[in-house]
Amino acid sequence: MPHAITKSHSSEAVAFHKFNIPDTLNPGHVTVKFLAAPINPLDMLVLADRYPVKPAHHISGNGVLGYDGVGQVTAVADDVTGLAPGDIVVPSRFGLGTWRTHAALPASALQKLSEAPKDMAFAAILRITVAPAYCLVEDMAPLRPGDWIVVNAGTSAVAQMVTQFAAMRGVRVAHIVRDRPAAELAAVKNALLGLGAGLVLTESELETGDGLAQLQALSVALALDSVFGKAGRALVKALAPGGTYVQLGFLAGPNAQLALDAADLFARNLTMKAFRGTAQLGLRSPAQQRELCDWFVRMFNRGDLKLPPLGLERVDWHVADPAAAEWSVKGAVEIARAGVLGQRKQVLVFKH
Amino acid sequence: MPHAITKSHSSEAVAFHKFNIPDTLNPGHVTVKFLAAPINPLDMLVLADRYPVKPAHHISGNGVLGYDGVGQVTAVADDVTGLAPGDIVVPSRFGLGTWRTHAALPASALQKLSEAPKDMAFAAILRITVAPAYCLVEDMAPLRPGDWIVVNAGTSAVAQMVTQFAAMRGVRVAHIVRDRPAAELAAVKNALLGLGAGLVLTESELETGDGLAQLQALSVALALDSVFGKAGRALVKALAPGGTYVQLGFLAGPNAQLALDAADLFARNLTMKAFRGTAQLGLRSPAQQRELCDWFVRMFNRGDLKLPPLGLERVDWHVADPAAAEWSVKGAVEIARAGVLGQRKQVLVFKH
Repeated sequence: MPHAITKSHSSEAVAFHKFNIPDTLNPGHVTVKFLAAPINPLDMLVLADRYPVKPAHHISGNGVLGYDGVGQVTAVADDVTGLAPGDIVVPSRFGLGTWRTHAALPASALQKLSEAPKDMAFAAILRITVAPAYCLVEDMAPLRPGDWIVVNAGTSAVAQMVTQFAAMRGVRVAHIVRDRPAAELAAVKNALLGLGAGLVLTESELETGDGLAQLQALSVALALDSVFGKAGRALVKALAPGGTYVQLGFLAGPNAQLALDAADLFARNLTMKAFRGTAQLGLRSPAQQRELCDWFVRMFNRGDLKLPPLGLERVDWHVADPAAAEWSVKGAVEIARAGVLGQRKQVLVFKH
Repeated sequence: MPHAITKSHSSEAVAFHKFNIPDTLNPGHVTVKFLAAPINPLDMLVLADRYPVKPAHHISGNGVLGYDGVGQVTAVADDVTGLAPGDIVVPSRFGLGTWRTHAALPASALQKLSEAPKDMAFAAILRITVAPAYCLVEDMAPLRPGDWIVVNAGTSAVAQMVTQFAAMRGVRVAHIVRDRPAAELAAVKNALLGLGAGLVLTESELETGDGLAQLQALSVALALDSVFGKAGRALVKALAPGGTYVQLGFLAGPNAQLALDAADLFARNLTMKAFRGTAQLGLRSPAQQRELCDWFVRMFNRGDLKLPPLGLERVDWHVADPAAAEWSVKGAVEIARAGVLGQRKQVLVFKH
């Protein structure tokens, strides 16, 4: 029997459901068994009712959580032509509800991968980690070889993918990471430098001004801020004239403020905006989005793109054992919600 | 004998010079007698060494002030083909030095107006008031009929031109003006509404929230901030989702700060940037810039564009009486520098 994790429509509680999918498929529909689905910061925003795109699928009135993931088609309605049983698929839009073992879905909600990824965890983060990192490097500012990007929350999976896409363009990335014990910091720095990062600084190195001076000596054309507040202001100050600041999130909390000086926009000619993954992907046609994901998978399969070395922890979801699944998945959600320093991105791996 | 106003290279003092222009013109050069030149806020930034484009012409090592204006060609070198004596010309780039009675200049620094304007005061503000107002409406955000612009320093000449260009696009403008005595406020409101403004609010009406609620009920797609600080923040709050904030200046002083909330960029998807008139005009070819200015003059001559009704005060510069000229022009600069509430834009009118 399929099961799923939903968000109560009246609170931030998560619920575990057993449910049935219909025996006969509606026209245009397919059934899918999910193989893997990440727990993203975005999912925590959805849980807190702070994300504009709401869950599109519901069980007992509760929205099915999970906005990214990968599945395998198990059956298709007679009129479906683009998909066949065995195909590997990812969501073609946000809000699909991937934190479930099985689903009956319109074929139009899914996008087939033309090549199966060597590791399903990579396919599971295509939409919300890999594609956004690509769009951040590609769309937010004109970048030329020699330019730098500065990114905070520098151990995040997105930051680690940004470094890889930037390297393909001859652009280096400075990662700002939170302060942590020396041994752990050394491990983090090594992992990021090994991935191609140009520089790794801690928040306090940045705030005491020495790190800021290091950054200001470079040509920092793009700042990617997931923190906001004081940390975001430091990124604004690090930008070279004509640079672009992009807000990805607000880990500093909803009440943090970022103070601008008169000189930031006017004298240094900065631009400030937010990043919306949906909007950026939406600049590409559905065919272009498919090509993009296929290209990511091809690069991953031949080793030119890597899974974030700092970033993944696999959480098993045993389909045959709903009680164990409920316990491990709800626990994983609580871990994600707590946002403890050093916590790696969790990926739910469905054991069918 | 020609005279000119310069900026000391070591201080913010202005100096009055008598000087000579050569009897024989260098190849490619023309002589011009200036007819009118405005005193712009930008000139005050140049005086304070806070504007990136520095004066291009010097007398005794001091930069000649004045970045906009209109003149008449009096003689041309043998090899000059595009200009002839009698032509009305405006600067084709910033920093030319228009606060002088006569100048020998490269023909390439001047742009001929194909139609003489009915009032030289309009020609004198083409580059720094009329063209920027057009670019603000045209270039900064996609505007559709029904959209609103909000602008502070709402009695400025630029704001009054913005309202006229916006009206041509079916876009209305809300002017934020400083608080002032009731009778004067009524006069200001009438003048702006008469020009086509959609709404006029005082700073305190905006800050007490009632005015803000009025603006938020509209579709404010573009905010033009010449003040920064608290007043700029009010403009940010007035924007509709997806809107664009543009910083034009910082009348609140160089130490003012504008605080952003986490929601401004991220949840409301705003974009923030500064306006650079030079950069925007530079997006047009020299031929397109000439067409633009000619189009402005044609509209002005047939009454479709108006001089700012709140905005001009003519200051005579008697060429035959250098002592009187020095006294009146230096006084006008001090008035501009003081920036008193209600002070109109001053235009130097050369009496040859």
